[in-house]
Parts: sequence; structure tokens; C-alpha cells
Amino acid sequence: MESAIPAHLTVERTRPARKSTSFRPPYPSFSARFDPSVRQVVMAYFGVQHRSATPPPVVSEALAHLASVGGGVNRERAQYVDEAGYHTTVEIRYWTDPAEFSSWLADNDFWTAWPAVPDAGFFLEVVRPTVPRFETLFSNDRLEGVAVAADGLSGEIQEHGYWGGARDRIPLAQNDLLAPIGDVSARTVGDLVTVVPNGNLCLIRSGQEWTETAGDERQMYLTEVEPVLRAGMDFLRDDGLSVGCYANRYLRVLAADGGVTDKSFGLSWWRGLEDLETWSESHPTHVAIFRAALKYLSTMGPAARLRLYHEVTVVEPDQTRFEYVGCHPRTGLLRALG
Amino acid sequence: MESAIPAHLTVERTRPARKSTSFRPPYPSFSARFDPSVRQVVMAYFGVQHRSATPPPVVSEALAHLASVGGGVNRERAQYVDEAGYHTTVEIRYWTDPAEFSSWLADNDFWTAWPAVPDAGFFLEVVRPTVPRFETLFSNDRLEGVAVAADGLSGEIQEHGYWGGARDRIPLAQNDLLAPIGDVSARTVGDLVTVVPNGNLCLIRSGQEWTETAGDERQMYLTEVEPVLRAGMDFLRDDGLSVGCYANRYLRVLAADGGVTDKSFGLSWWRGLEDLETWSESHPTHVAIFRAALKYLSTMGPAARLRLYHEVTVVEPDQTRFEYVGCHPRTGLLRALG
Repeated sequence: MESAIPAHLTVERTRPARKSTSFRPPYPSFSARFDPSVRQVVMAYFGVQHRSATPPPVVSEALAHLASVGGGVNRERAQYVDEAGYHTTVEIRYWTDPAEFSSWLADNDFWTAWPAVPDAGFFLEVVRPTVPRFETLFSNDRLEGVAVAADGLSGEIQEHGYWGGARDRIPLAQNDLLAPIGDVSARTVGDLVTVVPNGNLCLIRSGQEWTETAGDERQMYLTEVEPVLRAGMDFLRDDGLSVGCYANRYLRVLAADGGVTDKSFGLSWWRGLEDLETWSESHPTHVAIFRAALKYLSTMGPAARLRLYHEVTVVEPDQTRFEYVGCHPRTGLLRALG
Repeated sequence: MESAIPAHLTVERTRPARKSTSFRPPYPSFSARFDPSVRQVVMAYFGVQHRSATPPPVVSEALAHLASVGGGVNRERAQYVDEAGYHTTVEIRYWTDPAEFSSWLADNDFWTAWPAVPDAGFFLEVVRPTVPRFETLFSNDRLEGVAVAADGLSGEIQEHGYWGGARDRIPLAQNDLLAPIGDVSARTVGDLVTVVPNGNLCLIRSGQEWTETAGDERQMYLTEVEPVLRAGMDFLRDDGLSVGCYANRYLRVLAADGGVTDKSFGLSWWRGLEDLETWSESHPTHVAIFRAALKYLSTMGPAARLRLYHEVTVVEPDQTRFEYVGCHPRTGLLRALG
């Protein structure tokens, strides 16, 4: 059993972890371990939305162009239909060196420069957290998301399996409440809306993969867990603002050939970590998800083949870039403008 | 909005409360406020058990005698049938002055001095926490338990409606993890077994009253909430040791005439506060209770007539007295002896 916080980021806490060192988590989990030379990472979301089922030519062109450009240590595409009925595709890229990302972007700052077309829009959502500002959690050894850029996984960690674990895994939270500061603002220049979030904006990407499930387990995931998860995702998507969630997307990961995989994830922006915690631990929609997952895990035990992971990030405004062109007003952080 | 911890017990925290001051609880709750002159209280449980449905004469005599003796600021009787099938009656009394209790006990130390009879037993379980070692929580203005001895209730408090709230309401936890220390031991002299618990033993009395519910609300409590609560209580009663619960009783409060009332409560002894917290926030049986209660409260809103309260206490061994005569080995803290 080891701490989720690596030795080189451990400091004397003024904010103690919630559980004592004698606490034993009910099941094993792991955190990504980055080389200590990695100080800051980049999580970049390139999104496009269109009302029609068939993408307009400019959208197809943009996606094809992005695909043709290298860059980043991990690239993934995922899709969903948003609450306004817009077909949305998001490509995610990660970097472990912000200077490399800046240099890449200088050569490839095209995403929000596409010409506006009716009923279609582009968005770029980038966060560049220093390493003490995010944490990752895995139920297994298959790396996803930013962790693909890591050296590998920790051993079994102590700080999970209870409410508040995410906070206890974020190194900066050893001495910082990570409270939101200020408000969200925006600036419009021509078609481009740039959003500056409040301080300590929070992002969670929380995923599941059921590729290797079969028989009863697959049936149980698809009929008992996934519908409850979807209801929670829908709540956040439609009514999230009431609980501090600026935006939620529930995406299906795409294969290289564009077909769907047995992987999905929720991606949501929050005013702050505490809002995320409060919803998670006490809102009926998430308590239902937690209960369904507990039932699933206790029924399946170590034989469970469902894979779970998440990454939780808390950033300062100058570690972000949010740009929207031609997007409807409920897209991403635009919704936080009220 | 005020703190659950009264001003005269507030100190600078080395262990911050879990939520920020901007956290807003999802519904109002209140804590009992004792006069600052109250430094220590006594919670005394006088119990009797018998296998037969009809009490043996000595049991009837004991209960009648106890009823005839005054003492304490609040007296209640409650009943249940335990996991071994023993009919159990518990009388609870509270004092706000330990010296007064000691003096009372010197005159009335008869409870565990009844002659042992087959298939019947007596037990006395007493804790005498200093005021910083317990907290109370009420959903409404009807005082129960130790709070009957209080001056009244606080205004709406900040520290509730999230996991970990009980800890944040216990004054001593501002600077103390309240971790269990040492083991449970026992000494037998003749028929009398005296148990000395580990340090920071934890007690919760958690009650509900549905007297004023009617129609759909009453139906919903009795058919959707109570059965889930009962399943959780049964789990703790039968398998609690696996999660740090030494004993659990789920009792029905009796009226003065001996009939049942529309009030019940769970009464459980825990190795420590963290064990209670961990079960509450992550065990399927309690997550189910929480989910049922949330659904109930969100359906009923402010019109809910169900009344909820609890008291959570953490004590040192020299603040306790546990005595058992003729009791079966799964009674109360006897079970913790293994």
C-alpha cells in the first residue's frame, strides 16, 4: 500500500487526508506515475458540432486535416449527440511538455480559424495543469488519457474507495482548499468567443471500458449500470448548472476506422472541486450510480472485467484556453456565462 | 447558518472541516445547545434479555423496580428481539452531571446484581462523554435522547448533509483524529462480566419518528424506506464485526403504557468513528439507506413529516462501564471479545 502522491510531491499537510493510515480500501486501485522531470501537462480538446447527421464539408475537412497532423503523446477521438441535438466529435491530445505544445500550436493554430458555417461550430478547450494539480485513478493496468504519457502505474494506493479520495490524491490539496476564485468571463472578437474561467476550475474525465466483459457481466453492465450512469450524465448535461457543473459530455470512444468501441467516458467542467465532490457524494443521480457500481463490483468480485479510470484536474485561469466559433450557447463553458 | 460547534468549544483547527464555508447543505438541520456549565453527560443503557416471549418474574420485577426509581433528565424504554431470538428491553437514562449519576448509582447499583436465571440476562452499558466528545443532529425541533437535557437547538448548522459531517460536528475532532487505541478486554467475577473497551470507542443512536406522517408519506416510509433501513440494521447486527461494528440494536420506542410508538432507533457500538464513517459512506447496505432517504426527502420536500435525529459519541475507556450478567455471548460488547 502506497500513497497516491509520489514522494517528490509529498509535503507536510496542513489539510490532513480524510482517512487514517489504518484505513484499508475495499478494492485495489492505482495512480499513474510520471517521471519527476514532468512538471506540467497539456490536455487539449478539439471539438466540432453540427446539427445535421451528415457533417458539412468544412467539418469533414477539419477533422481530416487534424488527423493528418502529428503531435501529442496520446490521441483519441470520441463522439456524442449533445442536448441541443448537435452531433459532436472531440479529439483529445495530451502533451507532457507545455513548451512543445506551444510550439505545435504556433504551427497548427487552425482549429478555431475555420470559416463559420450555419449550424456548425468549432471549439478548443485546453488546460495545462502543473503535475500537483491533477490526479488519476485506475481499477486496472490499462492506461488511458493523460496517463498514457506516464511511466506506468503505482502499486495499490491508500487514498481511494471513500468520498473525498480525489482531493486526497491531488498533491496541491495537501495545503490548499482549491476553492473557486472569481467568475467566468468572455470576450468576443468577430466570430470567436474566448472564455476565461474562474480560478480553480475543475475538470473530470471519468471512463469505462467493457470490451472484455461477456455473458452475465456484460448484461449486468449494459442493463443495470450503464442506464443509471446515463441518467446521471443526462442530469449533469441538462441541469448541471444548479450544482456547479458548467457542462457535461458523455462520449463514446471511436476506433481508428471511425466505428464505436466498447469504451465511453464522461467529461465535465465544474466551478470547483467541492461542487464535484458534493454532487458525487450526495446527489440522488450519482448515489444511484455509486450504488449500481457497488452492486456490480460486489457481485462480480475480482472476476470483474469492466475497466474504470478517471482523471481530475484543477487549474488556474492562465493555465487554460477556451475558444468557441459558431457554437450554440450551451456549448462547453459558454453555458457558464449565464 | 452557524457552526455545529458552539463558540465556547471552538478552537483553531489542525484538522480542517471537510467542506468550505461556502458549502450550503441541501436541507436544514440543527444541533442541541447545552449550557456551557454542562461539561460532561451520562448516557446509561439498562438492558434485560430473555428467551421466552413472556418475561421471567425476575425480569418483570427488575423492570418494575427500575421504573419506580427516579433519576436522570430523560428516561425512555425501547424493545426488540435480538439475533439470538432474545426479547430485549432497554431503558435509557441521561444525566448532565456525572457526580449526580455516581451518587444515584451508589444508591441504585442493583441492575447487574439481579440473580442469574436460565435464559435471561441483564446488562448495563454506560458512557460518560465530556461535551467535546459527542455531537447531535436533528431534522426538526423535537428533542430526543441526550438533547432533552439541552437548553434547546441551534439555528441551521453548516456541517451536515455530506459524508464526514459527524466528525466535523464533534468539537474534539477539531484537533484529534479520534483513532481507536488498544483492544477490548474483559474480567469475569462470578456471574458478572465487565468489559473494558478500546480507546475512542464510538456509539451512535440514530432515530426516526413517523407519528405525524400520513397517506402517501406514511406509505412511502413504511414500504420504501423502513425495509431498506431494516436490512442495513440486520447486516450490522449479524455481520457488523467485519466492518468494525461491535453490536447493533434496532429498537422500537415504547409508550408509557408499554405499547409501541411510531418511533424507532438504531443503537450501535463501533471500534471507532472511522469504521462508522466508512460503513456509512460506502457499504451497499447503508448507501441503499441513504439513497432511499434522499428519494424520500426529495419527493416530500419541506412537507416531509418524518423526524430524524442522531447522537454520535466517542469515549475513553475510563468514561465507560459495561457489565453483563447471564447474557448470551453475542450481547453488546461481549461480541467484541471474539
